[in-house]
Amino acid sequence: MASFSPASNLPTPSSRSKGSSIATGWSKSRRTVWQKPTSKPSDGGAMDYRAINFQQKFGLFNEQWQPKVVAEMNDYQFKIVKLQGDFIWHDHKDTDETFIVLEGRLRIDFRDGCVHVSAGEMFVVPKAVEHKPYAEHEVKLLLIEPRGVLNTGHEGGERTAVNDVWV
Amino acid sequence: MASFSPASNLPTPSSRSKGSSIATGWSKSRRTVWQKPTSKPSDGGAMDYRAINFQQKFGLFNEQWQPKVVAEMNDYQFKIVKLQGDFIWHDHKDTDETFIVLEGRLRIDFRDGCVHVSAGEMFVVPKAVEHKPYAEHEVKLLLIEPRGVLNTGHEGGERTAVNDVWV
Repeated sequence: MASFSPASNLPTPSSRSKGSSIATGWSKSRRTVWQKPTSKPSDGGAMDYRAINFQQKFGLFNEQWQPKVVAEMNDYQFKIVKLQGDFIWHDHKDTDETFIVLEGRLRIDFRDGCVHVSAGEMFVVPKAVEHKPYAEHEVKLLLIEPRGVLNTGHEGGERTAVNDVWV
Repeated sequence: MASFSPASNLPTPSSRSKGSSIATGWSKSRRTVWQKPTSKPSDGGAMDYRAINFQQKFGLFNEQWQPKVVAEMNDYQFKIVKLQGDFIWHDHKDTDETFIVLEGRLRIDFRDGCVHVSAGEMFVVPKAVEHKPYAEHEVKLLLIEPRGVLNTGHEGGERTAVNDVWV
């Protein structure tokens, strides 16, 4: 299994240079949690932008099967999620879906086979292809898909997570 | 620094179940290197799809600053690249650009500051924002952007890499 790097690049109060400000990106909408201040530091110092650290984000929640948005790129969202156990069969009629495994080992079942995706690996499930994620032990993933895509596709039901929740 | 997982999920001839076939995805175009066979195994066995392993892909080339496509999702491409040293100032007028660092530490300079992105972290550079990647030591990245985007934006010049090269 791969391990996360320590968040060594995250500035701390003691390591920041005097007068710098921190931002973790540019505001794209009111939903984003990473915003660029509207003005530069008053002393004219350089902006100190902050990367999105997956380990730090995963530490903010415990629930499984509830994707959390961490970033947007154009009209696509990056969501982290913890999975364990079995999901339901579903597909996404209008879009491919990307799985990047950050920790653990995921199995994605298809009607004619399966794929195992471990930390340091990715897989793109084509649109309209039925699939069912499964993980014997908890796995931590990065999902990439267009904004508005539900975790259960069009299946609905109790496994449908609330969409567009940021962390 | 994060380490890659061993490619423990990659089937080997000795570990494959008899009669299984291996595929690393569905064919999206003639350019893709990961294709689904057109028929199931003759003995009716299950399809054995294969994930994209970043470590394995990085082992296939040595050159720096030459992004290689490893997958597509809708009209977006996933590109891996090795960087070291300084690049040129550029922007992408029509699209955001995502950097996910897989190994090493990247600095992205902006006209008003910079961000450090280490393994296990990501950053989205908004469209039309001038930026300049820099890495003191070699860094291995995953880039995500729409198909057709050039590494130098609209700047051109000798640092422009050949686009749409798959690995």
